Amino acid sequence: MMKTPLLLSSMIERAERYFPEKYVISRTHTGIQRIPYREIAKRTRRLASALEKLGMKKGDRVGTFAWNHHRHLEAYFAVPCRGAVLHMVNIRLSEDHLTHVINHAEDKILLIDVDLVPVIEKIRDRLKTVEHFIIMSDEKAIPETTLFPVSSYEAILEEGDERYPFLHDLDEHAPAAMCYTSATTGYPKGVVYSHRGLYLHSMALGLSDQLSVQERDIAMTVVPMFHVNAWGLPYAATWFGATQVLPGPSFTPEILAQLIEKEKVTMTAGVPTIWIGMLKVLQEKPYDISSLRLIVSGGAASPKGLIRAYEETYKVPFMTGYGMTETTPVVSLATLKSSMDHFTVDEMVDVRGKTGLPVPGVEVKVVNENGEVPWDGKTMGELIVRGPWIADEYYNDERTQEAFRDGWLYTGDIAVVDQEGYLKITDRTKDLIKSGGEWISSVELENALMSHEAVFEAAVIAVPHPKWQERPLGCVVLKSEYENKITAAELKDYLKTQFASWWVPDDILFMKEIPKTSVGKFLKRALREQLQDHYAGVQ
Amino acid sequence: MMKTPLLLSSMIERAERYFPEKYVISRTHTGIQRIPYREIAKRTRRLASALEKLGMKKGDRVGTFAWNHHRHLEAYFAVPCRGAVLHMVNIRLSEDHLTHVINHAEDKILLIDVDLVPVIEKIRDRLKTVEHFIIMSDEKAIPETTLFPVSSYEAILEEGDERYPFLHDLDEHAPAAMCYTSATTGYPKGVVYSHRGLYLHSMALGLSDQLSVQERDIAMTVVPMFHVNAWGLPYAATWFGATQVLPGPSFTPEILAQLIEKEKVTMTAGVPTIWIGMLKVLQEKPYDISSLRLIVSGGAASPKGLIRAYEETYKVPFMTGYGMTETTPVVSLATLKSSMDHFTVDEMVDVRGKTGLPVPGVEVKVVNENGEVPWDGKTMGELIVRGPWIADEYYNDERTQEAFRDGWLYTGDIAVVDQEGYLKITDRTKDLIKSGGEWISSVELENALMSHEAVFEAAVIAVPHPKWQERPLGCVVLKSEYENKITAAELKDYLKTQFASWWVPDDILFMKEIPKTSVGKFLKRALREQLQDHYAGVQ
Repeated sequence: MMKTPLLLSSMIERAERYFPEKYVISRTHTGIQRIPYREIAKRTRRLASALEKLGMKKGDRVGTFAWNHHRHLEAYFAVPCRGAVLHMVNIRLSEDHLTHVINHAEDKILLIDVDLVPVIEKIRDRLKTVEHFIIMSDEKAIPETTLFPVSSYEAILEEGDERYPFLHDLDEHAPAAMCYTSATTGYPKGVVYSHRGLYLHSMALGLSDQLSVQERDIAMTVVPMFHVNAWGLPYAATWFGATQVLPGPSFTPEILAQLIEKEKVTMTAGVPTIWIGMLKVLQEKPYDISSLRLIVSGGAASPKGLIRAYEETYKVPFMTGYGMTETTPVVSLATLKSSMDHFTVDEMVDVRGKTGLPVPGVEVKVVNENGEVPWDGKTMGELIVRGPWIADEYYNDERTQEAFRDGWLYTGDIAVVDQEGYLKITDRTKDLIKSGGEWISSVELENALMSHEAVFEAAVIAVPHPKWQERPLGCVVLKSEYENKITAAELKDYLKTQFASWWVPDDILFMKEIPKTSVGKFLKRALREQLQDHYAGVQ
Repeated sequence: MMKTPLLLSSMIERAERYFPEKYVISRTHTGIQRIPYREIAKRTRRLASALEKLGMKKGDRVGTFAWNHHRHLEAYFAVPCRGAVLHMVNIRLSEDHLTHVINHAEDKILLIDVDLVPVIEKIRDRLKTVEHFIIMSDEKAIPETTLFPVSSYEAILEEGDERYPFLHDLDEHAPAAMCYTSATTGYPKGVVYSHRGLYLHSMALGLSDQLSVQERDIAMTVVPMFHVNAWGLPYAATWFGATQVLPGPSFTPEILAQLIEKEKVTMTAGVPTIWIGMLKVLQEKPYDISSLRLIVSGGAASPKGLIRAYEETYKVPFMTGYGMTETTPVVSLATLKSSMDHFTVDEMVDVRGKTGLPVPGVEVKVVNENGEVPWDGKTMGELIVRGPWIADEYYNDERTQEAFRDGWLYTGDIAVVDQEGYLKITDRTKDLIKSGGEWISSVELENALMSHEAVFEAAVIAVPHPKWQERPLGCVVLKSEYENKITAAELKDYLKTQFASWWVPDDILFMKEIPKTSVGKFLKRALREQLQDHYAGVQ
């Protein structure tokens, strides 16, 4: 067989050739633009040639510091299709971490959204490798900035070559993109994605039984493009010629609901907090979201109440996905087997809330000290993962050996497997609560709390306890209409109906909000630090 | 990223692990069996261990001489998943060609269907490399045979190890399977398929926009498993956990219609002659085929009347596919773009009858002496193909250089490309008719003839002509009810309404049948030889 390498250029070239009139709907800081793939491809070629004029060479890292829009999409292809590496920088990192990741990746050129320029200006003096800044804006003029040397994206595109070729002789194992993931201790860790990994991952997203990304889709990527390849959606959607909706800077749940209604979005993907927020909007203002054939929710467990609301009230299939920065990211999806066609809504919601079945291409195991755990839905073990789009190291990082062993990625997630082979993450290794020698799953308690009608968000953490070693502590944000109308005791009673009494948190605190990570996940580490002495005085 | 190789073992292991209760419906010489993947996987492991006991080693070729059934499926995995190479031998080859391909591939072990044993007995003395014969039958006993040494499939399975492991450290470029394709001159040419090629090809078949093979499918593979991987369906269906229907020995169109009705088949694939035959059956006896979501027709162009009959009368989407033995085989599929949703039936049938759009992963070009032809639906050129599941040579064969040049496969098919990028094969390079310096497409004339209500089958060939160099000659099989009721002149008049007069065949002959190749395609070479002097006497 031909040794044709699996490269990202196949994707943009296919859209350019066979779907030139399909388009990208891009919300930028000035409004909404519709740009056909014919133009996107030309602009991508212009960008590639312009970046090389500015010094980009094979293997160089080019950073992006940007929201989801067509320019970011162009960079997603222009950089790797000439053999350089797109480093998507998380715009929500602290100044210290931001400085670290850009220096650690040794970014040579940095593409920055116009509204994010002030963030980079603040750390400019500490950046050691960046030789050129490019400001992404709808205007050709360069805004007032202390960054130097600096160009405007649209101005350099004008000078670029719209027929510039992509490289077809790259090694498919060559790096195409990279992304940093926050670590429990120390600076974020870098993960490098190869052309091959992204290619195979994108193909898996197009499988009928998986996300089924297809030409007739109008796919809205809510998950940030500065985070784990935006779950691979921009690549798959381009390859298969789907219409794309990129919601741009500082969007709100209401803006998303408007985009779904107006553009007739058929599928979308983001973290649960987004869908919780959109539900609130929909309850106040009935936007028409009936065009949706699928909402994919990942990055954290989706409360059953959330899944039920979309499935029952809005008749929109709501599927949980699971992955990590280290896994490109899609590892498993809570798809339903055809044998479940007769399931009741309760049973169906139960499956949709699981971590799901591994997608073709990826192997998973849940292991404890006795090897692979039985598929009984009860025995917990650590989830380990293997496959062609799973990282095998952290970029130039000693912490590689913590996670990558014997050819497997040790995810640090604790899971069970049911009789049908569905995974269910019950906790992070470090979030498990060890009470009197027994394990308690913080995630199951959180899900139970979030299924209570009064609860908007809930986190449960392990807090040191003088007698039991650790005990669970609940942190709850009430829905506004329930504030001061429900007590911790009532919530504890509610949990007692579902769990053994020793699982129920000794205390439940009400808060204004749960601190979140830069990508919208609960920042339980912060809660643990803040509340570590909460049980210190008890006997 | 991990360098996890892309291997066929992923497929059978996934079915075993996640879909053990889904099953294969296998029609054998004694009846219909339903075997769950749990058992198929165990039997496959048993077969792998038994074959190794009989001497199979990494890289060895193991031949199959068999219809479509579960034992053939087991061999499809058992052989390559231990690093050996499955050589599917076409059961319809002449004795001479049969002897050649088995000797040329150097098959060490040969698995033979019980009803096909006499064919191999006749050539046994000329086989130079086969060390062991295995007879596939529902019975454990070995039937009367002159073959030696010989075992029974079910008996060796009994001795096999149902937990025998598949190899996970094979090179993904290693050969997994091979198949011979008939040549214009000389012996058939061998094509070797790698694990990687079959893996990527199978993934493409599962894409939502392509064949969309999925877990809830009941997929009936009509295309023979002794021919080009049965178009990859057995691999894809196993991987994604679909129910499979394998129609076994000497099936008729009526048996297929019965299977569709009884097993509620959702998708099926085969050559146009099969679907023409089934249409005849359905017109006489109204089997319920409404469970079908897709018929894939390939190997030859599908007449529009055929497509229309399935689409209009039976409401079954009927899609043309294109490929060759050299291409694993799927290159393109006549899928519809979403922009064609408003098409009339006529317009839709027109697209469905084209050769289609290339599937993701494959690159195609249509080239003539000026490079790539314009996308005008008129300019003809040769179709060339490139990609990870396209062969780059014939196995130990000097004819490699005829077809493989500059990294592309030159298909020998003449095609045009329309403005949407859809390919349409207009002819084989060698079937084009060169009349007075102009080209005439035999395929277009055939399709037109076959759209006439009286015509069952039609072939048009180039016949040497004293004045025009070559002129078309029509060969027509009438539907039985039209025999002796229509004249050649009437059919010529019919063609004159659609083509320039110089395209219309000078003569049309009525025949009892069109000779066909071993896989059911028109054998135009035989017609040309038989009729080469037909125009010799004209002035």
